[in-house]
Order: sequence, then structure tokens, then C-alpha cells
Amino acid sequence: MINITLPDGSIKQFENPVTGYEIARDISPRLAKEVLAVSVDEELWDLNRPIESDSSIVLHKWDDKEGKHAFWHSSAHLMAEAIEALYPGTKFGIGPAIENGFYYDVDLPEGKVIAEKDLAVLEKKMLELARQKNNIERREISKDDALNLFKTKADEYKIELISELEDGTISLYSQGGFTDLCRGPHLPNTADIKAIKLLSVAGAYWRGDEKNKMLTRVYGITFPKAKLLEEYLVLLEEAKKRDHRKIGREMDLFTFSQDVGMGLPLWMPKGAQLREQLETFLKKVQKSFGYEQVMTPHIGDVRLYKTSGHYEKYGKDSFQVINTPQEGEEYLLKPMNCPHHCEIYKARPHSYKDLPLRYAEFGTVYRYEQSGELHGLTRVRGFTQDDAHIFCTPDQLNGEFKKVIDIIFIIFKALDFKEFTAQISLRDPKNTEKYIGSDENWEKAERAIIEAAQEKGLNTVTETGEAAFYGPKLDFMIKDAVGRSWQLGTIQVDYNLPERFELEYTGADNQKHRPIMIHRAPFGSMERFVAVLIEHTAGKFPLWLTPEQVVILPISEKFNEYAQKVSNKLNNCDIRTVVDDRNEKIGRKIRDNELKRIPYLLIVGEKEAETDTVSVRRQGQGDQGTMSIDEFAQTIEKEVKEQMTSLYV
Amino acid sequence: MINITLPDGSIKQFENPVTGYEIARDISPRLAKEVLAVSVDEELWDLNRPIESDSSIVLHKWDDKEGKHAFWHSSAHLMAEAIEALYPGTKFGIGPAIENGFYYDVDLPEGKVIAEKDLAVLEKKMLELARQKNNIERREISKDDALNLFKTKADEYKIELISELEDGTISLYSQGGFTDLCRGPHLPNTADIKAIKLLSVAGAYWRGDEKNKMLTRVYGITFPKAKLLEEYLVLLEEAKKRDHRKIGREMDLFTFSQDVGMGLPLWMPKGAQLREQLETFLKKVQKSFGYEQVMTPHIGDVRLYKTSGHYEKYGKDSFQVINTPQEGEEYLLKPMNCPHHCEIYKARPHSYKDLPLRYAEFGTVYRYEQSGELHGLTRVRGFTQDDAHIFCTPDQLNGEFKKVIDIIFIIFKALDFKEFTAQISLRDPKNTEKYIGSDENWEKAERAIIEAAQEKGLNTVTETGEAAFYGPKLDFMIKDAVGRSWQLGTIQVDYNLPERFELEYTGADNQKHRPIMIHRAPFGSMERFVAVLIEHTAGKFPLWLTPEQVVILPISEKFNEYAQKVSNKLNNCDIRTVVDDRNEKIGRKIRDNELKRIPYLLIVGEKEAETDTVSVRRQGQGDQGTMSIDEFAQTIEKEVKEQMTSLYV
Repeated sequence: MINITLPDGSIKQFENPVTGYEIARDISPRLAKEVLAVSVDEELWDLNRPIESDSSIVLHKWDDKEGKHAFWHSSAHLMAEAIEALYPGTKFGIGPAIENGFYYDVDLPEGKVIAEKDLAVLEKKMLELARQKNNIERREISKDDALNLFKTKADEYKIELISELEDGTISLYSQGGFTDLCRGPHLPNTADIKAIKLLSVAGAYWRGDEKNKMLTRVYGITFPKAKLLEEYLVLLEEAKKRDHRKIGREMDLFTFSQDVGMGLPLWMPKGAQLREQLETFLKKVQKSFGYEQVMTPHIGDVRLYKTSGHYEKYGKDSFQVINTPQEGEEYLLKPMNCPHHCEIYKARPHSYKDLPLRYAEFGTVYRYEQSGELHGLTRVRGFTQDDAHIFCTPDQLNGEFKKVIDIIFIIFKALDFKEFTAQISLRDPKNTEKYIGSDENWEKAERAIIEAAQEKGLNTVTETGEAAFYGPKLDFMIKDAVGRSWQLGTIQVDYNLPERFELEYTGADNQKHRPIMIHRAPFGSMERFVAVLIEHTAGKFPLWLTPEQVVILPISEKFNEYAQKVSNKLNNCDIRTVVDDRNEKIGRKIRDNELKRIPYLLIVGEKEAETDTVSVRRQGQGDQGTMSIDEFAQTIEKEVKEQMTSLYV
Repeated sequence: MINITLPDGSIKQFENPVTGYEIARDISPRLAKEVLAVSVDEELWDLNRPIESDSSIVLHKWDDKEGKHAFWHSSAHLMAEAIEALYPGTKFGIGPAIENGFYYDVDLPEGKVIAEKDLAVLEKKMLELARQKNNIERREISKDDALNLFKTKADEYKIELISELEDGTISLYSQGGFTDLCRGPHLPNTADIKAIKLLSVAGAYWRGDEKNKMLTRVYGITFPKAKLLEEYLVLLEEAKKRDHRKIGREMDLFTFSQDVGMGLPLWMPKGAQLREQLETFLKKVQKSFGYEQVMTPHIGDVRLYKTSGHYEKYGKDSFQVINTPQEGEEYLLKPMNCPHHCEIYKARPHSYKDLPLRYAEFGTVYRYEQSGELHGLTRVRGFTQDDAHIFCTPDQLNGEFKKVIDIIFIIFKALDFKEFTAQISLRDPKNTEKYIGSDENWEKAERAIIEAAQEKGLNTVTETGEAAFYGPKLDFMIKDAVGRSWQLGTIQVDYNLPERFELEYTGADNQKHRPIMIHRAPFGSMERFVAVLIEHTAGKFPLWLTPEQVVILPISEKFNEYAQKVSNKLNNCDIRTVVDDRNEKIGRKIRDNELKRIPYLLIVGEKEAETDTVSVRRQGQGDQGTMSIDEFAQTIEKEVKEQMTSLYV
């Protein structure tokens, strides 16, 4: 008798080995239609692989990331099958599922090329093969047999991969006439793949190493229903319009220069203004929560990072040490601000009465990323964290944690992120040796996070084994206006650095104790956050935040002076204005400035100049009538004030 | 007949060669008593060296830096004479005049040491020798004779120095029984040295190279009158009290950590608050002058600094290149912000209508200094410049230059620096090949600076040959509250970088033109400026600037809650407060907080809590009576407002 425990805790009993698919069918025929993969004791399995002993299972449908993963992984195999059919002799590298779809790296026969224009034919072939409704079958084989198989196909990539595997761990998957080396899991049948879109072709070095051969990487995405593909393509189109790199250029927010270096953004005046506005806002919020700003250098002696452990972690793959004319002196660009903040903590003795101490810094850090990984502002080599470190006693941990969550709520509200989820990452209780710190401290910290999240009514998922090695954490994911998910802020509990830096405070018992550290960055980084914000708002930032709030458009050069007067008056009320005094027709000026996403357009001509008024247009909403300058200033001030006060409740 | 032109343009004629001293005596016996050195055709000479051909001369007294230089240089020889008398067999390194006094590096005979306690005896010996009224005599000798002389004395240091000199350029100076290798110039007689103070002893490597032997360096200072020495010692005492390192520690403004690295300050909360207050102030001023903030990374590809010329200038002696896992990729810590700002300028095409563009950044730069050169916040390895670069047309140069001077005036006013001088540095018209750029541009730029300084009524000195190689400049020196001079802000005109970066704008003529750049940093750097400000104010910063404006002192724990209420109310009015709720007697609390240099102390007890009032003390001025909280808030707001509005006129 095999006992199968379902996620709700109920147990189903089966006489013989049973597959995930059979369990689903046993629950309901409808579920059987939708199920795509199964987790057996937290390991992802094929639906049609027999479960032979007592297990806990979770059935995955399209809505789960595990379901999508199996779906797209099988789609990668389907694409490989189609490529083999259309380009016989192709050798295959790797073909994984990714966040949105899948890719396969292939080495085409001499003289063959897959270009964008060939993708339609390849899609058609894939659909044709999917409609053959071939089963996808798993087979475990010995290393020798696997090597022989791929030697026959002369596929040196697979041979290289197999030679690194241990015997007894090798599995193949086949569908139709195609067989691939693969760990799985996969769909039971290709028939589930109903809608296919191949997205792009790119070059990719084998195993990401530029010393290797450049292969052809084909990206695609598939869906179980045609309607889902249609929706996805609309989203893709919308995402393209909202691409922060495009909008950043259009709005003159930031730029890159080859000579400064890849992944090192230069913030132009309007972008710097936007960033400063965000920083000022967060500083104000943080001040009301008792944070203190500090400032630290962007380098540190290598010793500092040996103490912190960062040298070991970032050393080899990162920016290398900086030597000086003095022999033996070595510095590193800082990859994190925490070691510097620990040194500030250490500069003075502390009593329990001083705690919690909350040191905040908009600290710019540098981490090397492969050039291929860089992307606009979301993946860069230098970025500014909205960092802070809270040094507290164990008793203060829960309270401090909740206050950080409050700050994150204020930010989401201010930036109009309505949907978000939070992930609690705990340590793997089966592998406690992977983590540092006592069991007692871990239990305390995990309880503190779980309780804090509960008390704040957070919608959370819990991932066991996803904690950092130094402590558990809570990460926030937001959903943007077009439904995409972005990871933003993080809160982490840390027992490690206080230990490594030998931080202390004197307790009420007059004994020395170690403080606990909380690392937190609600925005994550200014670069990434601005990117997300641009894509979320399509560049139409909230009035309180936007770099230029008002543009003044004189209808002819005669009124440039009056326009300047209006501008100065508004500036005095801390309203950010710009005057468009180009020698252009007013219609053209309105059109150009609507594109710049400035919320208010003020048109001024003879009538306005005579009566000290302005004609007001709201971006995208047209004419709002005529007002006195003071009246308009009050309108803006009121609007901003309403946005701001609603943030602090 | 020899024609001697005096600084006022008048000409004196002499039949025979004549010395500076004789010319002075010819003018007035009183001048002859005071004169210490003479410049002959801009070269500094001994007073008793005969002038044999037509020359322009300037006579230097104690008040000139040239006068002091000769005085202290001769004092160094006098000290060497005394050391030779007290420690026979001593070998002598170099002994120059410095900004305040002089030093001599000596190699004492085996087993001999000069310690602080020995300085009094040495002083006495020097006075005794000075009172012998020995003439100081110059003698020119051949290289061979010079080598023989010092070989007899077995002085390997002098031998090393001589061997590097060219024959025909070697002179000796002797007084009493002491002879030294020296270029001069010197006083005519040791009798002028009336008051002597030896200040300290330190170790110093021969020629500053740690591979060489460590010599003994004795520092001293001398004066022509005892009263001047007394005044100097009072100033020294006052300067010690005002030492920014000491006050920085007492006020918890900044700290250093060996593990972060020498010369890399960590700004603690109150110091960071102070810096931010200064930055916010300058940003506001700059905004009203049309500046735009930008933000750029702290590293750049080596290519960038090859283009700018900084690699050549800073490369060898500075922080070395940063390698990455990618072969051939090399970055540098930025030593200056200008190359990054040039790249921002280049990111878009510009028309003459866009100019001037004024990019400002509080940009942190890194420059390697020898560890022996580091000093508190005044000489550091990482510092934040209040940098800006103005890109303008030639016609705009004078106007832009004047506006920068206006900003500097506003700052001096805001920080209560009442005395300052400005130095105009021009190129050496005899060595134009040392400079880059056309004669026409140099003339234009120099004229622009001179005219701007004149139009602003600046008190300037002009130094020919002191320009940067890329353009002329204007530097500001301020005098602090105890009379010391500090170099602060600088304004520089630059034709070089626009050329190197090929910057362009389209003129009204539709042709491409090069803009001119102005570099300017009114504070110089935040680190240095804060140091000067601390020493100027002894840590008693103006109310608008000081990190903590008000401290609230409950007379017992019973009133802690009321104290917190007062604090919150004041915080809401943007007044920076702190509550001292320690369980201490009120007298102790007042004493402790007076020391912290917080301008206002509010004492609250039963009477105050019942009537919503506070008892006000002004730091250093005692009791100011009782006020309602609102009344007090208004007083503070008014005081700050008055300080701030007076700044912008």
C-alpha cells in the first residue's frame, strides 16, 4: 500500500505504484486535463513517472511556476525536434526553460543559418510535430550507453555534458523521433502545446565562455491555449513601449558611454532630479522612523572584506583589487555597504540603551557582471542601494522588522504599486550545517519574521532552504501595471557580520552581548527601482515625483517674458517648471510636450499676460480652463500635498 | 651706471654694483632695519649680494612671504649650527623653510638622540649663536671643491645632493663656524633672529623614501620680535583647541578605521547631517543660478582617462588600474569628475541656444596620497568635490565667471568668512609652449578672469606662470577666526578638455564650435571645507547648519514624556532636536550638553509640562527665560530664516 499525502494534509492510498497523472485523474478528470507536472517530496517529477513509496505530492498546473517550467522545457525539446527535422546534422547544446519561455543553443551544419525570417517556418514545423500527439518518454541509461548514443550522432556538446555526469544519474527523454539528454521533468505528451511563438535568434558562446564556439540561440514561448499567446503578444508590445531604456532616452533621464564603461549609468539632469526626489522622499520617511544617515567611501582595504567574508564571495569573479604605489596595500571597490557600517558601529562603545541604531546610506556599490548579462538599469555594474543596517537586541527584532515592513508599504503606496507578494526564505532544517549561527538564534529570527509578516497581514509564500547562509529573509515582489512581476525590496536578518566584526553592546546585565543586524533596501537599488518605475508608469510619474511638473508654452515669442515670469512665480512655490520658448507654432509645442510626459501644460498669450492668468492643459486630458497663477500654484500644491500626506498614514 | 627700477616704477641710479641692503638704506634707514630679502628680476636674492646690472627689484620685509622665507631658511642654518655644536659629527640632510617655520633633517652620531626634552637646550644654543651677530656669507664654488669639502666632513647626504648638481651652479653659505650647501637666499646676519621656538621632533626617511635611512627631523619657528613669538604660541594653543580631528571626535562627526583604510573618512550620523545640510544649501544656491545636478559612477574605463590626460598625470603615483575577469578590461577610480561630465555633454547634440549648460555633482573622487601626507579631513585619499562644469560660448565666459564669484560670495557670507583674498593665476608669457590652446583663447580667457574679478571688486594678487596648463584660474584663500589662511574654492577656465573630448555646439552661423569649460568648486571638497569650518567656528556652527539645534533636558525621568512631546513638536517645524533623557542630575546634563556645542538647551520640569512651555538657555549665554513651545519654535525659525535670507541678496 502506498500512502500519498496531498497538500491539504489528506492521504490517498494506492495498491500499486501510481503516477502523478493517475492521482490527478483519481481526484477529478478536469484536474487530469490541466495538470502538467508533480512535486514528489519537494522534487519535481514527470507526471507519468510511477511513485513507488509513501510520498507527499503537489500537482502543478499552468498557473504554477513549476507547471510552466515543465511546459516550456518540453517546448524546448519540441523546437529541437523541429530543428533536427529542418536542419539535419544539427548538434545540440543546452535548451532550458527560462522565466518567460525557453531557448535552445544549437550548432547548425556548415553553411546553415537560422535568421529571424526563418522562425515562422520553424514555428509551423513545431506545431505540426505537436499535433502528432507524441508521448514524451523518460529512460534511464548508463553513462557508456549515453556516450555511445551521442557519439553516433557526433554531438560533441552532449558528449562533453555526459562526461561530467556520474554514472547512474543519466536520463534521456524522447518524443517522436527525437531523443535528448535531460534531467526532466517533462509533459506527458506534446499535444498540450497548442500555441507557439518563436521570439528571436542570437549568438551565444557554448557554456557562456567566449573562448568557445559561438552557437545559435533561438528563443521562444508556448502556451496551452491560443488566447494566452494573444494576450502575451499584446503584453510584449506594451512592454516594448514601456521599455525603460527607450523612455529613458526619450525623457533624457540617463545615458551610457562606452568610454566610461558598460553597465555604468550616467544620470542626466532630469534623471538625477528624479533620483534625488526619490531619495529625499525615502530619507524623510526613514527619518520619521528614527534612521540616521551616514556616508562611507566606495573602497575599503581588502582586510575589511576578508573579515566580512565578501572577499571570498566576490573576490574572483568581480572587480579585482586596487594596488597603490605602496607595496602590499590593496583595496577593493565595495560590493556592499555593510562592512563600512559595522566599522561605524565599532567606532564607539554602545549600551543597550542606544539600541536600536539605524544607519542609512544611499551607498553606491560595484559588482562585476558579465557584459552579456547587462541590461539597461536593471542589470548594471555600479548601483546605489537605498541601504540601511539596523543594529538591535533580540527582543527588538520583531518590532524593528515590522517597522521595515511599514516603510515598504509606504513606498508601494507612494508609487502606486497595488499588487505585491512577499516571500519568506527560511533555512533548510535538514542541512543546518550550511548556515551559520546557533539553532536558538535561527529559530528566534525565523519566528520573528513569520510573526512580523503575519501581524502585518502580509500575503506570503514560504520557501524552505532559500535563506541566506547568515540568516532568514523576506523579499517583496511587485506586479506592475501590465502584470509583470519584479523583485524589489528585501529585509534580511544577519547573525554573521556581528560575529565576524565582533560587534558588542553592554546589556542591562552589564555583560557584553552581540547585536543582531537587519539589512534592508526597500527600493533594492535606485537604478533598478527607477527602471521598474518607468516601466510601471510608462514614464508618467506621479506629480510629486516627476522631474518636470509644468511646462509653460508662450503662443509666440512676444510672450516669452510673461512665460518666464509665470515660471519664476511657480519656482518660488517649489513647483518644477520648464519654459518652451522655441520659435514654433503653439500646436507643435503642445504635441511635442505631450510626448515628454509633463503633467501640466500652461498656454500663455495676450489674454493671459494681461490678466495674470494661465490656460491649463492636463497631459492626456486636454483643456482644464483658465486660472490665475496663484490659483494654479495652489492646485498643484494641493495635489502634491494630498499625494504626500496619504503616504504617511 | 646701474638703473634699479622700484615696484612703483621709479628708477634709482647707482655708479657701482649695489646690494639690496644698500638700496634700502638709500631709501630710508628704517627700511634698512626691516628689510630681509630682495627679489631681483623676480628671482629671490640675498640682501648683501651685489646687483651688477640694470634690474627691477622688490624689497621684502617680515610681512611678505619672501621675507619670512629667508628668515626661516637662515633659522634652519642656525639650528644646524647649534646641532653641530651640541652633537659633533652630525650629518645634515635638507633644511628648508616651510609654511610656518622650518625644519632640518639630521643624521645624529651613533647613539645620540634628540628628544622633545632636549629642544630647550637646543633653543638656548641657537639664541646664544644668534647673539654672536655673525654675518651669513655666500660663496660660489666648483663642484669638485664642494665634493671635497663634504667628503672631509663625511656627509654622504650633501655629497649625494652635490653629485646631482651641475658645475657652476653650486653655492655655500657660512655663518660663524658652520657652512652649508645652499642655494639661498639668506638674511645678512643672524642677529635678526630674536625669538626661537623649537616645536617638535619626528622621524623622516631621507628624501621621503622608506627604503632610505630614517633621519631625525626637528621643526622650529623663529621671529624678529619676542612679542610675535608670544602671539604665535597663543595662536598655536588656540589652533590645538580647534583641531578638527579633536572636535570631530568630541562631536561624533566622523571617524577613521584602519580596516577601511587610511585617509578614507567614515561620516557618522551628525557629520553626515552636517554635510547634507551644506550640500542642500549649495544645491539650492546653484539651482537659483541655473545649475542642473547629474550623477556619475566612481570608476571609468582607462580609455576615458587616456582621452582626458588624467591617466598620464595621475596614473603612476595613484590608485592603480582595476582589472576584471574579462581580459584587457581596465578601470580607474575617478580622480576627477570632469571626464564623466564631458561624456554627458556628448550624449546629445547641442545648439548655442542650449548654452551655457551647468552640470553640478557632489562627486566623490579618489587620489592616492602618501600615508605621511594624510591629515584628518584636510588631506585624504577619497573626497567629495562640490564640483560643477559650465559649458559655454566665448561670449558667455565673463558673465559665467562673475556668477561663480557671486556663488562664492554667498557661501563666504553664509559661513561667516569675512576676510579672504583671491589669486589670479596666468600663464607665463615667456613659456607659452608649456600651455595648450591658442594665444587668442588664452588672452580672451585671462582677460575674462581679470575683468570679472575687477568688476566684482575682488581684492586679488596676480601670479604669472601659475596657471594650469589648460587655462588660467582664480583661487580663493580665506582667513579663519584665529587668523590662519586656508585655500578653498577655485574657478578654472579650460580649453583643453573640450578639445580632447571633441565637444561641440552648433553656432548661430550653423557651424560647429568648441564650447569653453569652467571647472569650479566653491567649497573645494566637502571634507576639507568641513575641517576648515570646524576650525573656524571651533565646532559652534551657525544655527541653520548645526546638526543638532536644540537639546531638551527633562529635570527628572518623570518629564521624559513631556520632553519627547516638545521634541516631536519642534521636529514638525523642521527643527533638529535631541532629548537627553539620561538618569542624571540637571546640572550635569547642562554641563555635558554645553560641551556638545548645541546652540539651544531647553529645560523642562513640572512647571513647563503644566503650562506647555520650555525654559530656554543659549549655549554659552545662559538663561533666556521661559517661552511657550510655539513661541520658541518661532524664535528658531526666525533666526534661521534671517540667516538664510541674508544669504541670497
